[in-house]
This record gives sequence, C-alpha cells and structure tokens, in this order.
Amino acid sequence: MAERFLGVVLRQHQGELKNRPTIGEIGLNHFAPYLMNRVMARWNAHLAEDLKAHGMSTAKMRALAVLSVASSLTINELSVFAVTEQSTMSRTLDALDEQGYIRRQPRTDDMRIRDVSITEEGRAAFEKIWPTMYDLLLKMFEDIDEKEYRAFTTTLHKVLANIHKHDL
Amino acid sequence: MAERFLGVVLRQHQGELKNRPTIGEIGLNHFAPYLMNRVMARWNAHLAEDLKAHGMSTAKMRALAVLSVASSLTINELSVFAVTEQSTMSRTLDALDEQGYIRRQPRTDDMRIRDVSITEEGRAAFEKIWPTMYDLLLKMFEDIDEKEYRAFTTTLHKVLANIHKHDL
Repeated sequence: MAERFLGVVLRQHQGELKNRPTIGEIGLNHFAPYLMNRVMARWNAHLAEDLKAHGMSTAKMRALAVLSVASSLTINELSVFAVTEQSTMSRTLDALDEQGYIRRQPRTDDMRIRDVSITEEGRAAFEKIWPTMYDLLLKMFEDIDEKEYRAFTTTLHKVLANIHKHDL
Repeated sequence: MAERFLGVVLRQHQGELKNRPTIGEIGLNHFAPYLMNRVMARWNAHLAEDLKAHGMSTAKMRALAVLSVASSLTINELSVFAVTEQSTMSRTLDALDEQGYIRRQPRTDDMRIRDVSITEEGRAAFEKIWPTMYDLLLKMFEDIDEKEYRAFTTTLHKVLANIHKHDL
C-alpha cells in the first residue's frame, strides 16, 4: 500500500472543491490521521492486555496517569485530559475510589465542585503499570532519536492548539 | 498542564527499572501516545458527527477510504488497513453491500477467499464525505508547513515499521 505522492498534501483551496486533492492523489500513507489511528489502535490494544493482567482498564490507567502529574482536578478537567467521556469517567472514579486509589473532596468555597486527587495506593498502582507503558514507547520509537521525537511532539502540540483554536 | 522537561524522554535503560524516567519527570505533554490519543479522540468525534449526517459510520468511512485506493482486498487485509476489528468489519461490509457501495467476489483459484472492491456508487459516497475530512485535516495542521508535515508522517511510518518489526 506504499504510495508515492510528489504533490502537496496540505493544499489551501479556499473552499473550491476542484482544488482539493483526492485521497487517491494524497495516498492513505500520507494522510496523517489515518497513520495515527493505526498507531494508536495498536498502542491501545497492546496496553489493554497488560492492564487487564493488573486488574486495570484503559480509563482507570488514564485517570491515574493524569492525576499522578496534577495536584487535583475536577471530573470535567479529568475527562478532557484523560480522553474519556464524562459518564465513563464518573463510573471509573467510583471504581478507583472503591479500590482506594483516588479521593474526592468537595471544594470549601463551592461544595458543588469536587476535587479529585490520587492516593499513595493509586500512585503505587500506576507505578506498577508504568514500566510496560514506557517500554512500549521505547519499542515504538526505536531508532528515532530524541531530536526527531521532540519535533514530532512539537507538531502534536501545534495540532492540539489548532483543535483548541477552532473548537474542534 | 504544560510542563518543562529538559532530560531525555527516550532513555535506553536496559531493563533496569531505576533508570526509567517517571511520567512526572517526562510530563504528559512529552508523552507522544497521550498526545496522539487526544488528537485522534477529537478527530474521530468531529468526523463521526458529520458522517452521521451522511448516513455513514466511522467503520464504513474507513472501509470505503481504504477500498477507494486499493483495487481489491480480503476482509483480513481490510480489517488491518481500516483499523477495525474483523467482526465489526464483517457487519460493516454486509451493510455496505446492501447499500450497493461494495461488491464481494470469490477468488477463482480459491473460492474460500472473497475479494472486496468498491463500486462506483461507493466511490461517489466517499467523495461526498472527503471534503469534510480533508478540510478537517487542513484545520488541524494549520500553520504547519509541508516540510514539517512530511517529517511528521515520516516519523509515523517509522513507528508503524517498529510495530510490524516487534509484532505489537
């Protein structure tokens, strides 16, 4: 399925349909969202297996990952950062609370808002799965040097800024 | 949540746990899979809405996208390229067949294998949703020049090659 495409992928077309390249012209292999979907499908599937062995789900892992680097967050913030729908996040937090991995505290100045934070037990649980995640990262980015890796994440930050800017 | 990390993300640690950086040290914003998951969640959610308006699902769109650039594929190949589980792909093909968007033909030298290909109607249906996909790509990669875009997809190709190499 490797294709060569010598034209320009990101062609500014000013809304004129005829100026858009077709998917056939670009080639699937030059269509970044397609490539990212393929990579992330493997990343998520590979990790899900390992998480199951640790009695953990993808949503739980994501919540713990985010909470392990943030002091405390509301459920709304957590849903966005952990890329999990709010209803799923709500159920996930109930389960994590039962496991003693997180705590939820009403904010003193607004009792309707509850701040979620990670417990020492939660931190320990995340530390158990972190080596798998990190080693999977190393395998996926094998032979890609730090400079290229930095350029890659810099582009991703620009994309996330565009998503925010255009409210996508 | 922006974090600065001046160390090396991709540290080769030769299995010694103590040499792995923690997620706190790296920072979520320097962890590429996290960033890709956030980008793709928005891409997929945004597109799903638009697809629905065209009576199309994500799986259907992916199948048509892949088939529009390949002459014909087996269901196995199609599942991989379209990043869709085989059972889902099987149901998706039934639906696409009913809509007249694809055809399935037993291979003459091995009747157990059926080759899937796109019809003219399928091609027309994909062409209707393509402008949305392409314009979403342009928005997401706004202010990212062609050179940076190429470097980005080149890194993604390396990652996919590593996935294949390590059978991830």
